[in-house]
Amino acid sequence: MKYTFVTLFSNLIDGYFKDSILKRAIDKDLLDINYLDPREYSKNKHSKVDDTAVGGGAGMVMNPQPLYDALESLKKKDENVHIIFVTPVAKPFVQNDAKRLATKSHIAFVSGRYEGIDERVIEKYADEVFSIGDYILTGGELASLVICDAVSRNIDGVLGNSDSLTVESFETPLLEAPSFSKPKDYEGLSVPSEYLKGNHSKIRSLKLALSECKTRFFRPEQLLKHRTRKSYEK
Amino acid sequence: MKYTFVTLFSNLIDGYFKDSILKRAIDKDLLDINYLDPREYSKNKHSKVDDTAVGGGAGMVMNPQPLYDALESLKKKDENVHIIFVTPVAKPFVQNDAKRLATKSHIAFVSGRYEGIDERVIEKYADEVFSIGDYILTGGELASLVICDAVSRNIDGVLGNSDSLTVESFETPLLEAPSFSKPKDYEGLSVPSEYLKGNHSKIRSLKLALSECKTRFFRPEQLLKHRTRKSYEK
Repeated sequence: MKYTFVTLFSNLIDGYFKDSILKRAIDKDLLDINYLDPREYSKNKHSKVDDTAVGGGAGMVMNPQPLYDALESLKKKDENVHIIFVTPVAKPFVQNDAKRLATKSHIAFVSGRYEGIDERVIEKYADEVFSIGDYILTGGELASLVICDAVSRNIDGVLGNSDSLTVESFETPLLEAPSFSKPKDYEGLSVPSEYLKGNHSKIRSLKLALSECKTRFFRPEQLLKHRTRKSYEK
Repeated sequence: MKYTFVTLFSNLIDGYFKDSILKRAIDKDLLDINYLDPREYSKNKHSKVDDTAVGGGAGMVMNPQPLYDALESLKKKDENVHIIFVTPVAKPFVQNDAKRLATKSHIAFVSGRYEGIDERVIEKYADEVFSIGDYILTGGELASLVICDAVSRNIDGVLGNSDSLTVESFETPLLEAPSFSKPKDYEGLSVPSEYLKGNHSKIRSLKLALSECKTRFFRPEQLLKHRTRKSYEK
């Protein structure tokens, strides 16, 4: 998978690839990380990339010209590039998107800064527009990284143990059951005794009950989805 | 605001503070960034911090001992530290949380890796548990950064222009209206003509209509909230 981060601040992004799972995936040539700075495409003599908002309002908006030219050059080099804009004004990014996007060959993430990006750029170049959650960030760089990370772990070979993909939260509508490790008693808190007895069918039932319990508490609307799906399967 | 990132991989996090808004806030002493590595607290002779899951299942789980000792030392130094765990099994982090948390003096973010953190650590030390969205990441570091970034921009002085805080998506139930910058015509696409005429009450109405339109398309459930609120206000 090739990724291109279209950003004014590649230095906010590149540190994330310097260790752990994604670094190993880069070392194994499973991921190829690239950066494209719209400032380098600016035709303004001071390399400006933003201006005041037309129609008023606080803050600066990213101009169309540098982004048009940057994205045009990207598309000229690879017509299959899938261009994603991250903005709070978008559909929510979810786990199924992460799986679907893992089959692409080249994804470009366009990160806005300041008050955002001139809408005409999004209109013209976006293949998809995503929001990673109902909150506001100082820029699009973290949102781009979040999507990149979630997609990457669905690419074959990126995770050491492919089993780790199957039983996680959002792979089903239920949140995951709690995990426990050694020792079985620590500072007065114990692992649930059923986990220790080795009867895997009983452990499975207990984990399902705990999953339902966590989901009911934190995400009741997800529990409803789970029950609807179960009743279809019957 | 003091932040402490409790993580095995501080090098995945620290690059994000090296430029732009958060770097300026650090330079102005508005933010103070610290790291705490649970591995340094491990009593295992090989400094191990994880082990297989009790009850079976793929992947390794972070042991209680190193995290207990790391968090205990943190609380001893500052009893007001507010400890946040990031995990998909949690309530969704939203903009109102970002505003509320901006009034704390010290927030610690605990980032899990591998299959997650032994539930007993969360049970004992979590003041809050957040999920940043319905997707799975390779670890908690990006989720911690996302919350840190969203909280920081609500701290006085962090954003240059404090007006930028008021009219954004999620500050109201509506998504933000599109932004436009110069020039008014670019490559055949024009700014909406009303934006150019300078009648601010008409521009406000048009922006509200565009906001409602974006919200209806991307987030119909948010539009319902907006209408309920409006009818209460009448």
